[in-house]
Amino acid sequence: MAQLIIIGERINGMFKDIGDALRNKDAKPLQHWALKQEEGGAHYLDVNSGPAVPKEERPEAYEWMVKVIQEVSNLPLCLDSTNYDAIEAGLKHLKRPGMINSVPAERDKIERVFPMAVQYNASLIGLTMDKVGIPKDAENRIVFAMELVAAADEFGLPTDELYIDPLILPCNVAQEHAPEVLEAIRMVKTLSNPAPKTVLGLSNVSQKSPDRHLINRTYLAMAMAAGLDAAIMDANDDDLVDVAATGQILLNKSIYADSYLKVFRQR
Amino acid sequence: MAQLIIIGERINGMFKDIGDALRNKDAKPLQHWALKQEEGGAHYLDVNSGPAVPKEERPEAYEWMVKVIQEVSNLPLCLDSTNYDAIEAGLKHLKRPGMINSVPAERDKIERVFPMAVQYNASLIGLTMDKVGIPKDAENRIVFAMELVAAADEFGLPTDELYIDPLILPCNVAQEHAPEVLEAIRMVKTLSNPAPKTVLGLSNVSQKSPDRHLINRTYLAMAMAAGLDAAIMDANDDDLVDVAATGQILLNKSIYADSYLKVFRQR
Repeated sequence: MAQLIIIGERINGMFKDIGDALRNKDAKPLQHWALKQEEGGAHYLDVNSGPAVPKEERPEAYEWMVKVIQEVSNLPLCLDSTNYDAIEAGLKHLKRPGMINSVPAERDKIERVFPMAVQYNASLIGLTMDKVGIPKDAENRIVFAMELVAAADEFGLPTDELYIDPLILPCNVAQEHAPEVLEAIRMVKTLSNPAPKTVLGLSNVSQKSPDRHLINRTYLAMAMAAGLDAAIMDANDDDLVDVAATGQILLNKSIYADSYLKVFRQR
Repeated sequence: MAQLIIIGERINGMFKDIGDALRNKDAKPLQHWALKQEEGGAHYLDVNSGPAVPKEERPEAYEWMVKVIQEVSNLPLCLDSTNYDAIEAGLKHLKRPGMINSVPAERDKIERVFPMAVQYNASLIGLTMDKVGIPKDAENRIVFAMELVAAADEFGLPTDELYIDPLILPCNVAQEHAPEVLEAIRMVKTLSNPAPKTVLGLSNVSQKSPDRHLINRTYLAMAMAAGLDAAIMDANDDDLVDVAATGQILLNKSIYADSYLKVFRQR
């Protein structure tokens, strides 16, 4: 009865308070959001400096972020960067196995990241894209997912530690991607045994739409019906977390009780 | 770009105001709910006397209900009864093609209802059950769906005028049915070309649960992702209708505009 894994998105330098905290080496906002997301229902915390830290300082910044967050929270961390030296610096200081976010289907990056995931016993998010970009349809997303599954096999990462992210785009500008991503989630489950897991950066779907929360909630339910295993999302949007809890019930993955919403948050 | 068909559930003798109206031959409550559901976003109106009318008086009651509703609303009607004489009495007075709700996979009822649907140019809801009951899993629901598709072929009902209802049960007592119904919705689409449509009596899923509206909303999004074509539902639950509108967007079946919620209600 696998539960949807909620990866809290809030410790990201793109948010002003976190960006400022990174520039000032102020641990408090990071620790505040670590605790707050845990209360909301997060099972992992995404950790992303964003552009707030200059490239050459990122390895040091990730080491620092990992240390200060782990001072207050026991949640596993999802180290989110395109800078693999920064990710490795963070991995070295994890107290418990974490997640790497992310690697595209590009050979040089695959060769850098997969061995690192294996070495540090980390799960790995693989993106269905390459240097050329994100395919429009499900089938070509699956071509990239197959490359990533083959890489897992090649480098010795268990396929169920690989999380395929089929990359949802904002529905206000790339609406035709949304059903294709649902189909890709379904198709990923047929790629190997055990199957890779699937993950979405959920908030992307609603970027710059006036009805963001409604769109996020609706798409989460749809993606769960398609078999989604994990979502990087707003763990403090109570209505969204309620949909995650309800989706579990309706997929028969949590046992129904009248108090199921409360139970979900306490797990 | 087929839209989800919303069949308003409210004109049903199980509701006290409608039950009283039927006993008193008072047209006002029926007409009130006809207009109110149309405003909410309904495309069809379900019409069900329930037990408020004695069996022998039902044909007359359905004739009356059809007449008074059509005095105020141009929406097509979905005649909902296990009494086929009552349905036929209603069908005779429809101003525009309606829907028959419903026929199970039982030979004697199939022989009564399918010719009636063809004669009156009505769509027909077929239930995936027989005298023995409702199967637990998707596969056995599909066995019944296949019988109904074969009957459509035999009696000359276009398969896309047949709406298969895989019969969702309350998740608080029959939770294991909920994912099977989603799977059945997906499988129905493979049964013929053109495929039958699918419909759910959505409110059943949440019966006697404290979080009814949340469960209805979440299951609607999941069922839409599985390919649901129509739902008998509360057309005046604005949050639920918003999910229907958003689901359309995310399945790329309505064109995105920032005002898509408003557009959905005005269609």
